[in-house]
Amino acid sequence: MLSAEHRAALTALVGEQGVLTGAATEGYATPARYAAGRAAAVVRPASSAEVSAVVGYCVRQGLAFVPQSGNTGLVGNATPDDSGAQLVLSLERLRAPLEVDVANRSVRVGAGVRLSALNDALQPHGLFLPIDLGADPMMGGMISTNTAGARFLRYGDMRRHVLGLKVALADRDGTELDLMSALRKNNTGVDLKQLFIGTGGAFGVVTEAVLDVQPRPTDRAVAMVVPADVREAPLALLRLLEHGAGEVLSAFEGISQNAFRAALAQAQSLRNPFGAELPEYVVLIELSASTGADTQAMERLLTDLLERAANDELIVDAVIGRGEQLWTLRHSISTGLKAMGHLLGFDLAFERGAILPFRSAMIAELATRFPGYQVCDFGHLGDGGVHFSLLRPHALGDAQDAAVYDYVFDAAIQHHGASFSGEHGIGRANQSIYDRHTPALRQSIAGALTQLFSAAVPGAVRFGPKPEGILT
Amino acid sequence: MLSAEHRAALTALVGEQGVLTGAATEGYATPARYAAGRAAAVVRPASSAEVSAVVGYCVRQGLAFVPQSGNTGLVGNATPDDSGAQLVLSLERLRAPLEVDVANRSVRVGAGVRLSALNDALQPHGLFLPIDLGADPMMGGMISTNTAGARFLRYGDMRRHVLGLKVALADRDGTELDLMSALRKNNTGVDLKQLFIGTGGAFGVVTEAVLDVQPRPTDRAVAMVVPADVREAPLALLRLLEHGAGEVLSAFEGISQNAFRAALAQAQSLRNPFGAELPEYVVLIELSASTGADTQAMERLLTDLLERAANDELIVDAVIGRGEQLWTLRHSISTGLKAMGHLLGFDLAFERGAILPFRSAMIAELATRFPGYQVCDFGHLGDGGVHFSLLRPHALGDAQDAAVYDYVFDAAIQHHGASFSGEHGIGRANQSIYDRHTPALRQSIAGALTQLFSAAVPGAVRFGPKPEGILT
Repeated sequence: MLSAEHRAALTALVGEQGVLTGAATEGYATPARYAAGRAAAVVRPASSAEVSAVVGYCVRQGLAFVPQSGNTGLVGNATPDDSGAQLVLSLERLRAPLEVDVANRSVRVGAGVRLSALNDALQPHGLFLPIDLGADPMMGGMISTNTAGARFLRYGDMRRHVLGLKVALADRDGTELDLMSALRKNNTGVDLKQLFIGTGGAFGVVTEAVLDVQPRPTDRAVAMVVPADVREAPLALLRLLEHGAGEVLSAFEGISQNAFRAALAQAQSLRNPFGAELPEYVVLIELSASTGADTQAMERLLTDLLERAANDELIVDAVIGRGEQLWTLRHSISTGLKAMGHLLGFDLAFERGAILPFRSAMIAELATRFPGYQVCDFGHLGDGGVHFSLLRPHALGDAQDAAVYDYVFDAAIQHHGASFSGEHGIGRANQSIYDRHTPALRQSIAGALTQLFSAAVPGAVRFGPKPEGILT
Repeated sequence: MLSAEHRAALTALVGEQGVLTGAATEGYATPARYAAGRAAAVVRPASSAEVSAVVGYCVRQGLAFVPQSGNTGLVGNATPDDSGAQLVLSLERLRAPLEVDVANRSVRVGAGVRLSALNDALQPHGLFLPIDLGADPMMGGMISTNTAGARFLRYGDMRRHVLGLKVALADRDGTELDLMSALRKNNTGVDLKQLFIGTGGAFGVVTEAVLDVQPRPTDRAVAMVVPADVREAPLALLRLLEHGAGEVLSAFEGISQNAFRAALAQAQSLRNPFGAELPEYVVLIELSASTGADTQAMERLLTDLLERAANDELIVDAVIGRGEQLWTLRHSISTGLKAMGHLLGFDLAFERGAILPFRSAMIAELATRFPGYQVCDFGHLGDGGVHFSLLRPHALGDAQDAAVYDYVFDAAIQHHGASFSGEHGIGRANQSIYDRHTPALRQSIAGALTQLFSAAVPGAVRFGPKPEGILT
């Protein structure tokens, strides 16, 4: 509960409509995954200056706050815990600026601009932000979690697209750190903006940014193929495509039989394109480029490459075309899986050669150790990211869930060199995994940085213990 | 001069051939640009562990050292000053590892591996590191300066290619910070490696890295065109090409008449392809991609796009093909200019829309204020980087050089929003510009980080004053 004094002070900073309490805060306290918390209040500044004023006030008063933009994250980093003591600092009113610079091929955005709104503004100029996600997050969260998505292989993550930032530092003065710039090349000292990308708001609240954006491709070809086997063929196929198509290869997504089945159950107008039986594993492939007047170039190239793949006995079946249906199928997997039972989600990332061996090992070992849990993996084979989802029938009960989480994380990290968070960042949901699996020296240095940037903020994410004399 | 005691101790760490003194150190004390300094000695460790041992020893003993890899930098950051008190810590013996992981499309390299050696090792696998430079630097320096080059437009800078790092921290214990990883997606806390990219070794010495590498394009087309004017047409042409060719546009380089003349004087087998008179300004364009069996696709696409540009009256002349000759011309500019007089070099970067207005303003203003200095600019119009070179005839004398430097830097930074170091980083040569043009808050934060990482190293680059209570 917010005291009357704090409420009055915050209202003076952001206006009546800037402070929400009671039932109006519930949506802000409920994450996209995991259980809801409770917010002391929601504070909604409408400008970068207001954000800094609120942050300064909170630091001086010792009020814990959680920055939140689109609240689409999956690790509980944008919602309050259940103490009822934390404020939500919502950035949703920072929908300005949204200014496209066509000559520089860049755009200036507020932290509260949604991905869909940005792409709507870019569309008339033939541009887009090439981060392909199921959700529709806001810029602040996309930058703070360094999100990536299904076309990473070609376009990379948010870090690659950020040219400049404005940050509300978590100090007593409510200092605004202006790192705004629209330059692509700029090596004039420490690139401070890197510290605020992917750190989930722990070092400061991103309020505004300049992003490098890309020309929209005008020609696209999509195929779904059945690899000859699930151990070697997919990676050999990836290599063939990368060398035959270079970076116009814009997606290379693996889909397991279980994930495929869930998608078909969800998207009922779609059929299995390979006949009656579902293949053990399929790969979704996309090429995209701008090819001038020639809008068949990508399909010709893809057909040519898949013929070579068939001749090399890397694939046993393929459908080319029907791109919209195939992507609908891909994007129906998550919802489809949720409808089939309880989902244990893992956002893992591997070296590319390690994904399929890990998958085979887990299918075998889980069947023995934890019978009933089904491997329903899918994800970005081309860049090493895997949504390693496990489906547990509701009838089985949750008694073993915690043991399964530990088992899979330990196997992935210790035996297969995985990252436990490929693109979701760190939040309450995986703080304990961070603490257990991050080497002590990295925690020390990250702790020193945390102390530098947010020692004064109660309740902020901690990347390490309070450092004692490291580096001296 | 190195004392006998220090010499014995360092020799015990790196062996007899690891310590050079006297005349053998001269090459290591002479930068590629600016005057030579003097080294107390050159220490050449042969492994990451030896680097850390040497660094720890230097910190404990208060010995100043300057890390150096290929010594091709242009801002004096890899060579000692003329005090004779600084050691050169040469990384040239770290030529291992050089291990290609074909499945992961990545490579593990030592800091002493040269760009040419890396590309030789990648060639048989159809891969390359797509950083296109005139020099042949080593990996340590390329990472520490975050170098980029002529194909930034398509492939970005070194930061984009670094997946993992090993760093010798500048502490008394000679701590090795192991950030090695071959993962593309990994958002598990603070991405510490970003701090060591582009900071010139001030935070620690990069000894090893894992790099993401790219498929070599198999189809390439090059053209040189004369834009209809030098104010608007080049950017309109860039837009047309980006929307018509997307990211297969791999170079868009502007070349002034003076730079063109110098290149022709240098590369005497080449002729002006546009007849007797040199155009006021030309643009070199390259498309490159992998296009399967079709090796004419890029030339068809480029021809198609340049026909549209001619119809839109953006260009008045063009030659397509002869890619090797056109690139030779481009790469002959620097040497050609050096032969014509004294060069004042500026490594500026702008928003793309600001380059040509800056250029026009400077040509007019320099003619009035500093007659005799000729603008011979060339560079990367597509990404905003400009080698803004000024030629001063030897006969004119150097009395006004310092004033010209100040005038151009101030105009570029204050009135045209430029970066004073697009890709060369910070070194002795531009420390004073850094001090003058970097906002106080950024210097404070950078100073706090410097204190954290290298307070114990005498002689290290300083990014800011000793911080006093910032952020608290």
